[in-house]
Amino acid sequence: MGEKSKILIIGGTGYIGKFIVEASAKEGHPTFVLVRERTTKHPEKAKLLENFKSLGATLVTGNIYDHESLVKAIKQVDVVISTVGGESIADQVKLIAAIKEAGNVKRFLPSEFGTDVDHVNAIEPAKSVFKGKADIRRAIEAAGIPHTFVACNGFAGYFLPTVGQMDTYSAPREKITILGDGNKKAVFVKEEDIALYTIKAVDDTRTLNKTLIFRPPANVLSFNEIVSIWESKIGKTLEKTYLSEDQLIKNIQEAPFGLSIVLSIMHSVLINGDATNFEIEPSFGVEPCSLYPELKYTTIDEYLTQFA
Amino acid sequence: MGEKSKILIIGGTGYIGKFIVEASAKEGHPTFVLVRERTTKHPEKAKLLENFKSLGATLVTGNIYDHESLVKAIKQVDVVISTVGGESIADQVKLIAAIKEAGNVKRFLPSEFGTDVDHVNAIEPAKSVFKGKADIRRAIEAAGIPHTFVACNGFAGYFLPTVGQMDTYSAPREKITILGDGNKKAVFVKEEDIALYTIKAVDDTRTLNKTLIFRPPANVLSFNEIVSIWESKIGKTLEKTYLSEDQLIKNIQEAPFGLSIVLSIMHSVLINGDATNFEIEPSFGVEPCSLYPELKYTTIDEYLTQFA
Repeated sequence: MGEKSKILIIGGTGYIGKFIVEASAKEGHPTFVLVRERTTKHPEKAKLLENFKSLGATLVTGNIYDHESLVKAIKQVDVVISTVGGESIADQVKLIAAIKEAGNVKRFLPSEFGTDVDHVNAIEPAKSVFKGKADIRRAIEAAGIPHTFVACNGFAGYFLPTVGQMDTYSAPREKITILGDGNKKAVFVKEEDIALYTIKAVDDTRTLNKTLIFRPPANVLSFNEIVSIWESKIGKTLEKTYLSEDQLIKNIQEAPFGLSIVLSIMHSVLINGDATNFEIEPSFGVEPCSLYPELKYTTIDEYLTQFA
Repeated sequence: MGEKSKILIIGGTGYIGKFIVEASAKEGHPTFVLVRERTTKHPEKAKLLENFKSLGATLVTGNIYDHESLVKAIKQVDVVISTVGGESIADQVKLIAAIKEAGNVKRFLPSEFGTDVDHVNAIEPAKSVFKGKADIRRAIEAAGIPHTFVACNGFAGYFLPTVGQMDTYSAPREKITILGDGNKKAVFVKEEDIALYTIKAVDDTRTLNKTLIFRPPANVLSFNEIVSIWESKIGKTLEKTYLSEDQLIKNIQEAPFGLSIVLSIMHSVLINGDATNFEIEPSFGVEPCSLYPELKYTTIDEYLTQFA
């Protein structure tokens, strides 16, 4: 393999974006972060940007609504990774147009970082959220842009600190609510691992025009299995309540828009088992832990230790 | 006033939609509810549909992605009220196209039922969510469709049962977390009241091409004032924690997409005071409690009684 590709990250100050920027810089890629003028004035984000610079990343002023700035930024790099937020998924058509015009991009990773949206069977509003990502996949393919779709499944940091509880800020020590029968296998991956495998994949021909589907063997666990691990860490058996699918669907319908997205994604993953109920066929997907067996990922068991 | 207009509700089995259908039927409007084929097979929704029928509403099979069914349904009525979910706001362009083609609609109420999106100063992701609604307003105006935009502000049922707490399912009796300094005035309205005022407005020339902005005098209260009312109901002073704006913004950035929408809307309403920090000018808005002083709405004080 020759020189490391130059990477532009769009959405780099977002939740998963900051891990991607860090991994890219640490792995020795010339790293560029598209930053809006006003972001530099935001106290929290300004700290993050200082950290990016200290890692050697270059900040580039621009935004996805400013076509000129976008094309100019893209022309400087080989790879574009978008980590824009859920509210901006559809706006990535502007990114596709700019990449097409620039004409030099060897790999584009649109903002995904969740369930594989081509293998999902969700109810609303998650259904529309997933469809938004799938529409962007189709637009990238139609534009003939070389790509990798990153289906990393669940963020460890969203689910594990409370062991999947929505009504508390800390891990439960007395009672726990389990969705459905708790037997469907889900997948949770630590954010730093998601970022590192993603960066490994950008220059890898094996991931070209494929979906990178995360299934770290030790992290493919059911809700019940995760609860068992947690119980063994705290040396205690929790009082369990099983929330029925009917009740969850009712909760989704009664929840404010937004919360209903979170709950319906949990329904897809934990009740339908959408993260694991299909085989990864070589025609569409590759599993990163198999591709890079030399990397050691954090297991759910290890991750939970910090909260015990 | 002549005969009551015929009303078609799209999204009638949704959170606010079911209240609108009920109010429309009870107020004597010939009421039609657009229903997808598969909705009739959904156990919970089927019960709701039976209730609609028992109130005299007519179910019409169709959906907003089936242009023919939509135009056909619209041609039977005078007024179209959309209460589609947050994930389908942008898809209302299909509804606009069908209304334009049908050519007979005297009033269209797009799915809003929140803050007045033309007078809001939100951070992401709420900013994009509000912009999605504002874009639909502009598309309706551009198409020359007679309309009323319903800015009912907050749903009582989302906020009051937990007195604004996100980490519990019941009203607090020991401790409470208040966002910011708790002094900005917000507005919460009971869902049945929102529905009734909305139905009153559809045949009213005073609301034509205006925004119906809800400010029931007794329900324009700050977080601190609502907490005081709650404390007087339970005869107890709660231990208060004030969450700073900086911390809330950090929470928004770290929250899963979806939850971040809820939190950023709370930021807009409770920290920025976006629901009340402008005057309702006759050029763009009307306040329904002033228009219909004969109606008695439920006050926040009355509403909280049930949880004490």
